[in-house]
Amino acid sequence: MGDTQPQTAAGKVLLHFTMSLDGFVAGPDHEMDWMAGAAFRPNLIEEYARTTGAVLGGRDGWDAYPDPGGIYGGAWSGPVFVLTHHPEDAHPAEGVTFLNCDPAEAVRIALAAAGGKNLEVFSASIGRQLLELGLVDEIDLHIAPVLLGDGIRLYDNPGGKPIRLSRLGEADPKSTVNVRFSPATPAG
Amino acid sequence: MGDTQPQTAAGKVLLHFTMSLDGFVAGPDHEMDWMAGAAFRPNLIEEYARTTGAVLGGRDGWDAYPDPGGIYGGAWSGPVFVLTHHPEDAHPAEGVTFLNCDPAEAVRIALAAAGGKNLEVFSASIGRQLLELGLVDEIDLHIAPVLLGDGIRLYDNPGGKPIRLSRLGEADPKSTVNVRFSPATPAG
Repeated sequence: MGDTQPQTAAGKVLLHFTMSLDGFVAGPDHEMDWMAGAAFRPNLIEEYARTTGAVLGGRDGWDAYPDPGGIYGGAWSGPVFVLTHHPEDAHPAEGVTFLNCDPAEAVRIALAAAGGKNLEVFSASIGRQLLELGLVDEIDLHIAPVLLGDGIRLYDNPGGKPIRLSRLGEADPKSTVNVRFSPATPAG
Repeated sequence: MGDTQPQTAAGKVLLHFTMSLDGFVAGPDHEMDWMAGAAFRPNLIEEYARTTGAVLGGRDGWDAYPDPGGIYGGAWSGPVFVLTHHPEDAHPAEGVTFLNCDPAEAVRIALAAAGGKNLEVFSASIGRQLLELGLVDEIDLHIAPVLLGDGIRLYDNPGGKPIRLSRLGEADPKSTVNVRFSPATPAG
């Protein structure tokens, strides 16, 4: 505060998920056990723990995992916000603020609390609303080598219009990503 | 035929799709217009036209695009098979054989017709059944920079078990694929 250096600029609003190859960020009941065995690049946790200033989640996810200590395996701590119409019956936890407002207002509050670092949105349904509002800066996905077939989708929007994206870090922002897999354990 | 060289080995059973980032291979009514603007690597069409020996599709896809001349933009021609319970009312076309059998038998027939080249399965629902039967050799996807929110999913299998995959062409077959995007046209 009172600092005029560039790092006082607002952080980014980031949708950051591990996703199954077929587009799910959680199982039907918010299960995350399907991630077991997936290999991530070295230093990934340290990298995101360093750049994350605040987290915004949804009520369903909070009810499934009501412990902010598990974020980035405990490597990160900071302000966590949970958007819910019923804060009164949510399981409370230290450092967690329950917000009953519209998603745009929740982003303003959480981004201010992030202190110039990024706001990570951990809810696909909030993410969808923010995408439609034009409030998402980046979608950052780790695609895991597994097909789930059912669950919480990254972007669930029947009747909506497609959202065009630009690839970051590539010469051509419209470039497709070619990925090839073989089934590891054929059913039998 | 009569050739004892290695190329007489059976081709692979390949699920080869362009997929939206959120896991759809077609729109709700089999639309493919969302692919417009996506950039593919050079020589992709020539590459697959050369390695493809036969195509197996489903009835819905055939009814939406009853023209084998459109496969790989016309760069490929060869035996096309369409699996349907009702061959009698399918729109006929030269080079297209309608099969009324189980998916495993359809694969045997189409793979034999592929003459040692690959069989490409262009139907997600047939693909799902073949995955469950352990009859898929490779899943080869071109992930396009777009979110659809609804449509025909790569792998739609509520109540099924996750299918573990191995990444091909990577040192670690369990490695995740990190992809980063920004919305190209924020809604507003």
